Amino acid sequence: MPLDESLMPHKTALLSALEANDRARLDAQLPELRSADIAEILQELLEDDDVLRGRALLACLPLERRASVIGHLHAEEQLVIAEAMGDDVLLAVLEEMGADERTDLFKVLGEDRREALLRRMARQEREELKRLASYEEGTAGALMTSDYVAIPTGMTVSRAMMRVRQTAPDAETVYQLYVIDPEGCLAGTMSLRQLMVARPGARVDELMIRDVIHAAVDTPQEEVARLVARYDLLAVPVVDETRRLVGIVTHDDAMDVVESEATEDIHKGMSIGQLEDGVSRVPLASLYRKRVTWLVLLVFGNLFSGAGIAYFEDTIAAQVALVFFLPLLIGSGGNAGAQAATLMVRGMATGDVGVKDWGKLLGRELLVAGSLGLTMALAVAPIGVIRAGEAVALVVAVSMIAIVLFGSLLGMCLPFVLDRLGWDPATASAPLVTTLIDASGVLIYFGFATLMLSAG
Amino acid sequence: MPLDESLMPHKTALLSALEANDRARLDAQLPELRSADIAEILQELLEDDDVLRGRALLACLPLERRASVIGHLHAEEQLVIAEAMGDDVLLAVLEEMGADERTDLFKVLGEDRREALLRRMARQEREELKRLASYEEGTAGALMTSDYVAIPTGMTVSRAMMRVRQTAPDAETVYQLYVIDPEGCLAGTMSLRQLMVARPGARVDELMIRDVIHAAVDTPQEEVARLVARYDLLAVPVVDETRRLVGIVTHDDAMDVVESEATEDIHKGMSIGQLEDGVSRVPLASLYRKRVTWLVLLVFGNLFSGAGIAYFEDTIAAQVALVFFLPLLIGSGGNAGAQAATLMVRGMATGDVGVKDWGKLLGRELLVAGSLGLTMALAVAPIGVIRAGEAVALVVAVSMIAIVLFGSLLGMCLPFVLDRLGWDPATASAPLVTTLIDASGVLIYFGFATLMLSAG
Repeated sequence: MPLDESLMPHKTALLSALEANDRARLDAQLPELRSADIAEILQELLEDDDVLRGRALLACLPLERRASVIGHLHAEEQLVIAEAMGDDVLLAVLEEMGADERTDLFKVLGEDRREALLRRMARQEREELKRLASYEEGTAGALMTSDYVAIPTGMTVSRAMMRVRQTAPDAETVYQLYVIDPEGCLAGTMSLRQLMVARPGARVDELMIRDVIHAAVDTPQEEVARLVARYDLLAVPVVDETRRLVGIVTHDDAMDVVESEATEDIHKGMSIGQLEDGVSRVPLASLYRKRVTWLVLLVFGNLFSGAGIAYFEDTIAAQVALVFFLPLLIGSGGNAGAQAATLMVRGMATGDVGVKDWGKLLGRELLVAGSLGLTMALAVAPIGVIRAGEAVALVVAVSMIAIVLFGSLLGMCLPFVLDRLGWDPATASAPLVTTLIDASGVLIYFGFATLMLSAG
Repeated sequence: MPLDESLMPHKTALLSALEANDRARLDAQLPELRSADIAEILQELLEDDDVLRGRALLACLPLERRASVIGHLHAEEQLVIAEAMGDDVLLAVLEEMGADERTDLFKVLGEDRREALLRRMARQEREELKRLASYEEGTAGALMTSDYVAIPTGMTVSRAMMRVRQTAPDAETVYQLYVIDPEGCLAGTMSLRQLMVARPGARVDELMIRDVIHAAVDTPQEEVARLVARYDLLAVPVVDETRRLVGIVTHDDAMDVVESEATEDIHKGMSIGQLEDGVSRVPLASLYRKRVTWLVLLVFGNLFSGAGIAYFEDTIAAQVALVFFLPLLIGSGGNAGAQAATLMVRGMATGDVGVKDWGKLLGRELLVAGSLGLTMALAVAPIGVIRAGEAVALVVAVSMIAIVLFGSLLGMCLPFVLDRLGWDPATASAPLVTTLIDASGVLIYFGFATLMLSAG
């Protein structure tokens, strides 16, 4: 994560104050900055292995602030900081954190350290932490926090207001309240806004919405994020198998999911597997593995193009000038096809395109791709004439239309076919589509050439 | 927008009730559904040109609900509905909407209709609407709403609480309050949570945070969204040139921006221009225009590959078997290069990668791409031996390493170079990168072939 330009003067001032061990200047600087900003500066220091100054910086912060800053660090740097802390301090920091950040920090620690810390926690705290840490990454369970405001059924508005006031310092959000029955099951929800304008003597049961939008602990995180986006929610409650309320996923975490899922989709579009961290931070061996699989598979895919060329070796030998136009034709088809595939895959990911739209979209693609092919054929035809005469130019122009049309339709249909087969439509990546079109393009081009030039 | 599976039974029930003109059944069905869901059903009806049933459905909804549902429709369908309404009803619907949705609906109307409606509005309302409609699309101004809670400086906590209660039904969010000075300038902010636990006699000035994270009316929407994501905000206040508070952008709108910006980036990665609507809805002429520009430009880019081939025509004629491996080699280089470019472009868009990281990333890419090239060379070498003998196999293997390495480094560096030149790094799209690598790959491959085979 590069340091934002606007933070640079602050960073310089902070560092020089740290260097001079000038606590007064540090104390003057630090309140100016938000935790996310201090964390960015600290992250930079730690990435440059400047652990000493990083620790000195943290030491200047009050405990609550320190916990918040550590919560913003990446996992690797969290571990560095945690390892430099004694159990007492680390326990105090964990205590200060929200339940979701506490769980994340806990999960980066080694087995031994975790056991040591758990032994020193109160039973309830320990069970809670173990439970939250047990959910699979990428699910609502792993994303949620247990710091929410729960109101028992039957409570009056005025008592619920008191409960909100008491919980205010600790809850992740106090603006959406969850009503639970004696078994702990989610019975309804209401907003603080509703509560504030309600008659103090009314019971929450009379006011709450009973049909609550909720997720299960194993709901994939992208679905949770979609619920937040679709219904403009502040938070989504999460229930276990018995419908007991076990946590909430807040809008800010949902927003991070939208961003990271988009990154994953963009990478998938280039046949890159899911990276566990940013590209500048992920281990090289992992980056290699996530890139190599499809690259090698597609080497073999590309052999079909080679085989096509071998099949038409006589045509090529008779008219070597044809090879001049080969990269151009298969490249153009690949580009148009990758465009079509990308439009479909993203449309399906955002919910803009559904499987049942296939027919309508096919018709549209036919028209657009036909026009694109025609335009590109007109662009390439004069070059064909100049370079190799009218006969070859005609072959090239006709091939261009055919390849662009075929490529676009292939790119458009592939995501639907994959989806139908139960695969991720995003497997229709640009590299896969272009490889398929390369092979088909060779056949189309040299097929037309053999046909049209030998006939002429 | 395809209809969510879970909505299908509701839709069927709704439609049959509509068909039967069974108001009682409709009234029983409708409260079960949320506005976003009813809007999806209505959107479907209107896309199928079933305006009659669409209007009948809307007519069953109370005015407030109707306004909310219309707010969820796409622009095109909003226009269809608005055109079918008289001025009285349309004015009533506009009245019920939040300021941001009202502005959006107003903007889809024709000039004459707008004038007619404005004439019938109260002066303040009219000025407000004209002002909100005047901001450029894609800026904080166009995204913001004017329905926020403003508290004058000097007000006590208890009076501010009263103000919140009064504003609760209308404000977009009551959970973040904005303190303004007598000139209307943003003086500070505080959360409702803070207000609730504060001493009733305290003044908001004592409690508020003065250093407010804010945007200007012309701040690009993606920067506003980034502020919301970075600082986990419920809303970002927006100020005009004189620092006067003019609106807020709420978290739900920021989340929509993150999603639409990701879509734009994904399309850009395939050299597709910014679409004004979803791929299944955008006009065909527009879809053609947004795709054709780069496709035609790259036709000419691909001529360099052709020229390279022409230059080496003698080598090719002497050993036609070489052409077998051409698509494979330039395809592999293009895939690896497009991966590298995509990783950089997305990293730069999310802030994970900065220009100053260039050196470190170059070193990393050198190692990863070297390993990738080596792996792919080992995969292709046996095929080379079988197909064309050891001498050609060696040329192919060496070329593979060189092309993958060169392609990856080119793909990695191009976004940085473009950024340096003041261009959008995302211009380094997969089609551009693969076209550049195609041309270089031809030179590398046949260069090696000429050198190594004539020497042998």
